[in-house]
Amino acid sequence: MQPPYDGEKLDRLMSEAGVDLVLANSRENVRYLCGGYYFHFHERFTSMGRGQYMALAGIPRGDAGKSFLIGGTGEIGQAKDQNLWIPELIPSARYPAEAAADAANAIAGRGLGGGTIAVEENFLPAIAKDTLQRELPNATFVEALPILEELRAIKTPEEIDIYRRISQADAEAIREAFETAAPGATTRDVAHAVERGMTDRGLHFLWVFACAGTGMLRAPSEKVWEKGEVLHLDAGGSESDYLTDICRMGVRGEPTPLADELYKACLGTQDHVRAEIRAGAVCGDIYEKGTTYLKNTEHGAHGNFIIHGIGMVSHEQPYFGPGVERALEEGMVVSIETDIRHPEVGYVKVEDAVAVTADGYEPLGDLGREDWVVVD
Amino acid sequence: MQPPYDGEKLDRLMSEAGVDLVLANSRENVRYLCGGYYFHFHERFTSMGRGQYMALAGIPRGDAGKSFLIGGTGEIGQAKDQNLWIPELIPSARYPAEAAADAANAIAGRGLGGGTIAVEENFLPAIAKDTLQRELPNATFVEALPILEELRAIKTPEEIDIYRRISQADAEAIREAFETAAPGATTRDVAHAVERGMTDRGLHFLWVFACAGTGMLRAPSEKVWEKGEVLHLDAGGSESDYLTDICRMGVRGEPTPLADELYKACLGTQDHVRAEIRAGAVCGDIYEKGTTYLKNTEHGAHGNFIIHGIGMVSHEQPYFGPGVERALEEGMVVSIETDIRHPEVGYVKVEDAVAVTADGYEPLGDLGREDWVVVD
Repeated sequence: MQPPYDGEKLDRLMSEAGVDLVLANSRENVRYLCGGYYFHFHERFTSMGRGQYMALAGIPRGDAGKSFLIGGTGEIGQAKDQNLWIPELIPSARYPAEAAADAANAIAGRGLGGGTIAVEENFLPAIAKDTLQRELPNATFVEALPILEELRAIKTPEEIDIYRRISQADAEAIREAFETAAPGATTRDVAHAVERGMTDRGLHFLWVFACAGTGMLRAPSEKVWEKGEVLHLDAGGSESDYLTDICRMGVRGEPTPLADELYKACLGTQDHVRAEIRAGAVCGDIYEKGTTYLKNTEHGAHGNFIIHGIGMVSHEQPYFGPGVERALEEGMVVSIETDIRHPEVGYVKVEDAVAVTADGYEPLGDLGREDWVVVD
Repeated sequence: MQPPYDGEKLDRLMSEAGVDLVLANSRENVRYLCGGYYFHFHERFTSMGRGQYMALAGIPRGDAGKSFLIGGTGEIGQAKDQNLWIPELIPSARYPAEAAADAANAIAGRGLGGGTIAVEENFLPAIAKDTLQRELPNATFVEALPILEELRAIKTPEEIDIYRRISQADAEAIREAFETAAPGATTRDVAHAVERGMTDRGLHFLWVFACAGTGMLRAPSEKVWEKGEVLHLDAGGSESDYLTDICRMGVRGEPTPLADELYKACLGTQDHVRAEIRAGAVCGDIYEKGTTYLKNTEHGAHGNFIIHGIGMVSHEQPYFGPGVERALEEGMVVSIETDIRHPEVGYVKVEDAVAVTADGYEPLGDLGREDWVVVD
């Protein structure tokens, strides 16, 4: 079978980095390399007995047909049912040391025991790294992150389609949570409504920040969303480990003129930045324009502007910041977020996602973006 | 503030292991040491940018007042709102190397830079371990797992109360999924109903095995649950990271006499084992009795019997197996599972949990245990 990702690109990235084999263990990278496949049992928890489930995907450069997956004994049926493209599933992932020993064995068996192996140092457990080093004393270990984040940077039409669906579902779940929040509801109640709304729509709930009134406490709590208070719901969920992250504003009763001003400053910043988004636009320029626009609004001193790529990792390529020279490419997905924290109003925030197109952008899940959700 | 766990026990376990400071980074152990507190944003995902959120809880032996938590800047409000007992929250957890450097600094600042530090080698990322070793060249690093799993082995009345609630919620969600499965429903549909049922009841959904008919595929799939087929739903969820894990059986139409025999053999094994559960009973003896009983049933050749402690880790202390001499203690929570995989019937399985009491056990979430859920 052919790899489901851009195999030529991966080979090129590996060549440029002098890497003979990529050995990924973070859930997102294993899943990406496996074409969306991941053992469902351990998608949301890993600890078992005296270790944890740790899958390892090994892809040799220029020879994807010799790829392997260190998985669990219990996932052979699922791998077959879902047509996992990787030809060899080696069942031993229950403990990281065993999994790493089997990976070392698979690497040596492919003649790469003296090669350069790219691993995820931020994710690979220390005991697994020690095992790899001991079992492959002639190998050189380097960081896999630059290769893998670049591989994932441009989304395919199928991935953009996931983004359309999950962004809309997230926005709907947030709106529903605002609209069903009865008087006396706490931010924890509203957060739970977001979770239920996501689950009903096939998203896996991940988090929600719920900040009511001027207290600035964003964690769901016993704080009641009181009459006259603004509430932001900044919520994320996932499908097949693709993350959505959206923030919308509600207010119980009519917003004050000052609150409205803050909202308009946030939305204005978002709109101003969106107008710059297109393939070829330079990330540093976009960052600069958003920052400057917000700073020049009346309450810009309290404002924060953030923009980042989003995918299987919540901040990923493309990165934005002062002087970043990288240009946007068609198929990138970008999250744009603006907030103003004002002592008299609270935490006003709008966050959106867009997909970069050749001549602009496609908005993703814009439902409820334009204005407050006003609740009695 | 006093530690919320058994501080004397932790000090004793650390003394016995010659450990000066425990440095935990797995979610369950950080959360346990923090008395249930964990940054809500990263409870269900961690990857961010070029690393991941990694909390580290550091507890010095005999001096809990000098404990520290390496957390995120965004969690200071939550920690205050939830009265985190740990006196020092050091915000730097976004990347493992930075978090580890700050932990090393905190350890050195407490005069323990030349001490013995217990870390979780199965969870601590390699880059964090490297950083700790580089920053604390005179420290000795040992495995924290035996200390931490023993610390968590006996559940408090508050933890047992969580188990009553989550086991019941899990059993209810499973029953509801059986009862609402329309003709033509796939195992993926039924699995999603379990997820919704858990979410409605305040559980975080973790997994469901859904095995219909004789195919033995346990992963949710496009397989339709057909008339005459048995279906097992083996599902887990969590609250505050305490896991529940229950399996119940449904059948579409009446079960065959053979299917009934298998069910009775599983339930009989479970009942036989339960009768042995009490404080003081020896784990190896219980394992032996369950295994022998099942083997002597008519279809025992196809049977599997497993028994294990359950808590924040799905298989934890107490462990069971041939010759295990450890005795049960009041407050342990034990999961008991029996299955028979029969080529003519399919995968029949019953899984339950009980809390060990002085003279027996308390069943947890027995709803639907006694018989098939029969669906048209």
